[in-house]
Amino acid sequence: MGSVKFGIKEAAEFLRDHDKFLIISHANPDGDTLGCAFSLCGALRNMGKKAKTICADEISKRYDFMKAALVPQEDFEPETILTVDVADRKLLGSLNEKYGDNVDLAIDHHVSHVDFAENLCCEPHAAAAAQTIYKIIKELGAPMTNEIAACLYVAISTDSGCFKYSCVSPETHLIAAELLHYDFDFSGLNYIFFDMKTKARIALEEQLYSGIEYYCGGKCAVISVTSEQMSGVDIEDGNGVSTIPRQIEGVAVGVVMKQRSNGWKASLRSNSSVDVQKICSVFGGGGHERAAGCSFVGISLEDAKKKLIAEIEKVLS
Amino acid sequence: MGSVKFGIKEAAEFLRDHDKFLIISHANPDGDTLGCAFSLCGALRNMGKKAKTICADEISKRYDFMKAALVPQEDFEPETILTVDVADRKLLGSLNEKYGDNVDLAIDHHVSHVDFAENLCCEPHAAAAAQTIYKIIKELGAPMTNEIAACLYVAISTDSGCFKYSCVSPETHLIAAELLHYDFDFSGLNYIFFDMKTKARIALEEQLYSGIEYYCGGKCAVISVTSEQMSGVDIEDGNGVSTIPRQIEGVAVGVVMKQRSNGWKASLRSNSSVDVQKICSVFGGGGHERAAGCSFVGISLEDAKKKLIAEIEKVLS
Repeated sequence: MGSVKFGIKEAAEFLRDHDKFLIISHANPDGDTLGCAFSLCGALRNMGKKAKTICADEISKRYDFMKAALVPQEDFEPETILTVDVADRKLLGSLNEKYGDNVDLAIDHHVSHVDFAENLCCEPHAAAAAQTIYKIIKELGAPMTNEIAACLYVAISTDSGCFKYSCVSPETHLIAAELLHYDFDFSGLNYIFFDMKTKARIALEEQLYSGIEYYCGGKCAVISVTSEQMSGVDIEDGNGVSTIPRQIEGVAVGVVMKQRSNGWKASLRSNSSVDVQKICSVFGGGGHERAAGCSFVGISLEDAKKKLIAEIEKVLS
Repeated sequence: MGSVKFGIKEAAEFLRDHDKFLIISHANPDGDTLGCAFSLCGALRNMGKKAKTICADEISKRYDFMKAALVPQEDFEPETILTVDVADRKLLGSLNEKYGDNVDLAIDHHVSHVDFAENLCCEPHAAAAAQTIYKIIKELGAPMTNEIAACLYVAISTDSGCFKYSCVSPETHLIAAELLHYDFDFSGLNYIFFDMKTKARIALEEQLYSGIEYYCGGKCAVISVTSEQMSGVDIEDGNGVSTIPRQIEGVAVGVVMKQRSNGWKASLRSNSSVDVQKICSVFGGGGHERAAGCSFVGISLEDAKKKLIAEIEKVLS
């Protein structure tokens, strides 16, 4: 049975009518799910309601600033369960078992959303779930603060590549314009999320760049990363490595081979009209048209690359 | 004698009252000066006026798409000279001698603008001069097209680091929201200007990363680039090299030493409260608080670095 579908008004009404909220972010949390959770939690608290946030996985220190959106509050037993930016109950990670069946309202923006909550407010055209949260907070008339605006801004900017990607719409920019009327250091935050590189990341990139291999007349670029190269690099530094080869001019398919305990995991990205999901499915993998992956167990890096590139060649030639 | 100061309305009125425009971009042209020139030229042509653009230096192929904003027109003898995004007549490059004294209207956004034109429309709060051009085109009531919107968008996005930098204001996002109502591939353009790296650039970065030196307990990072390393790298690839060291976590002052025929040119960038203009002025250089440069003539790289780092140490310790 599917979720009851809510618009912005119904979602706001639901929040107004309930209390003692537990707001759950998805596992392996990113800026959007955290920005949604902290901004909505802060707004609900500012309305005099009880609200707290949880996430199955550890939160990177880069998001510490978001805590400032929450006025202190005594602990309480939750009565209303919300999820934000969660496309599927499986993405709740270790919290799925306890909460997956009991979500009262899911607020999301994924086209691929799989119903799990009793009620769903989903705007699949939104660049970030935080666009919807912003509109719900406005509809609620909850007091907006500089700190809440900062959470919403980072949620939107991190999910849209700082307004770079095709998911951005006029509404995305209109909301950003509204948020910039509040006082927070958006350019300092953008520096941290987009420009800053740790020394470990620089060292990793240097190693990766020196090992780029080109195939198919330069239309395919492959980078291989050993476990040793990734050790000592924290998750934030490791993120985005998969996108490096596809950023090279003329490259239609970018491949990153990451060493695993039992073999190699291939992450494929494509720019042009190549469907990498199809290529990965040959090896039992999956994903999306532009981003997909597959695993090679118990074979050498050279053999794994040979098999994969043979499939890529079929498409690119 | 200073320029007569125009607001948006006066600038639009001036353009309405004149014809046969020559629109000049600054030398070493960037996205803003070119986007301003092509969008304004296109809009004036769409109003039935004669207009053309020139620039002292070669234009990167990346901006070829801008030509689509111009409906074809027969050549003509210019009567009205405009400059766009030109802060100082010296920045006209080789066109300064011929046109520097005869500019009828300068449209700019630099706080540091040095009057040279008869009339000036300058909005120093704008993230890009294209924000002002957009408002003038609206005020003119000139027909907007998808192609003109693309020029204005790229001008704004390239000058603001795709909305990342502190120069961005609510107005910047409001204009972007308006522009995205037109039909052009903004995410494809953003890929070209922000994400795509040529193979030569990747090779250059690999070399530069391997040569990063840290000083002042990691608060200063220095990269040195020889002429040999830069040869074969086109201008677009070379751009942005100056910002690499300051992007490293914990680095307050980033230095790039570029080899010149007669010595070394140092480009300094700072993130925090360090005034690099002051540091460079010790060596007869100049610039801004966060971005400055100076030259070391007739001495070795090692000696140049020693002198510069001694000054940086005074500030950072």
